[in-house]
Amino acid sequence: MDYPEALEELVESLQQLPTIGPKSAQRLAFWLLESPEPKALRLSEAIRNARCQIRPCGRCFNYTDQEICQICSDPQRKSSVLCVVVQPKDIHALEKTREYRGSYHVLGGLLSPLDGIGPDEVRIQELLDRVHEENIDEVILALDTTVGGEATCLYLSRQLGPKTTVTRLAQGLPAGGNLDYTDEVTLGRAFRGRRRVEDLNPQ
Amino acid sequence: MDYPEALEELVESLQQLPTIGPKSAQRLAFWLLESPEPKALRLSEAIRNARCQIRPCGRCFNYTDQEICQICSDPQRKSSVLCVVVQPKDIHALEKTREYRGSYHVLGGLLSPLDGIGPDEVRIQELLDRVHEENIDEVILALDTTVGGEATCLYLSRQLGPKTTVTRLAQGLPAGGNLDYTDEVTLGRAFRGRRRVEDLNPQ
Repeated sequence: MDYPEALEELVESLQQLPTIGPKSAQRLAFWLLESPEPKALRLSEAIRNARCQIRPCGRCFNYTDQEICQICSDPQRKSSVLCVVVQPKDIHALEKTREYRGSYHVLGGLLSPLDGIGPDEVRIQELLDRVHEENIDEVILALDTTVGGEATCLYLSRQLGPKTTVTRLAQGLPAGGNLDYTDEVTLGRAFRGRRRVEDLNPQ
Repeated sequence: MDYPEALEELVESLQQLPTIGPKSAQRLAFWLLESPEPKALRLSEAIRNARCQIRPCGRCFNYTDQEICQICSDPQRKSSVLCVVVQPKDIHALEKTREYRGSYHVLGGLLSPLDGIGPDEVRIQELLDRVHEENIDEVILALDTTVGGEATCLYLSRQLGPKTTVTRLAQGLPAGGNLDYTDEVTLGRAFRGRRRVEDLNPQ
């Protein structure tokens, strides 16, 4: 027996989603059929609305349903510091720390020459223009610590410096981490980045 | 920073799905925003279409997009044998075995008096009517081997017998199973249900 066509199509389109395999897609499809109709249609509507309403912020390329995103239009935030991230969800992660009150710039990707991603494929020109036009004092690079992240950091610091202060997030031990479970690269960077204790806990 | 409303709503409606927690919902929502528009809208459409087009078969309560499902309308299938299952997806599992060429009846649930699910909450009356009207010779109970499944088997065999032959699926060792990993209840049932070797491999 085959499933009816509409059910087959539902299973297949669920299977497109990341981490959803054939078994999960089937289970989700049956749930969508068996749950109360408003619940299932709510998801259908939510997908459609999100695709129609959400767009990149005209300034920082964060997701927004306005011209300019909530962060860019907040007058309380410092506009002279710019934090560079790869994707909009990185902004959410950084905002949760409540450590940063400046503005952001979403690159949209990391440089990866082997995959054909050069400076023109990510929003580097837009970043250079903003740094120039908005009189940015400091650019904080909050990129992944992968090969692509390192390459992008290097490229950006060469493009931006020495006129602009370019910093990057500290590397070292994670909070709650065990020393003997930490890999040697991280440990090495934690060593090199060590700080005076009195600097960390000012009296 | 909060997400824009439409994105928040997408995350929340994804989180309704079984086995999708807040982190997965967020990841899926971003995927739906970042993937090509037709892919995301395909899922939205598929949910809507499935809910509009799929309904229970008028005879066996399997899912179908017709009045009567593919299996019920297949003239090649024996109509004198009825296999009782709990939910439409059980039919799919049984069909994959290619062992059975009769018709089905979807109960829609198992008896569970403690949860307030009595004979009137599942499609038992419909089953009794069908057995009577369609001159069914044998009713095969293909129910879970849980407490609810056992109770439902007992109830149905009392309601249907002795006029109709009521059988249930064999219980015993699973294919590829190791004896020492099999629990004692299953082993006990495998003992009680043992069969003569010559009956299993007829010359």
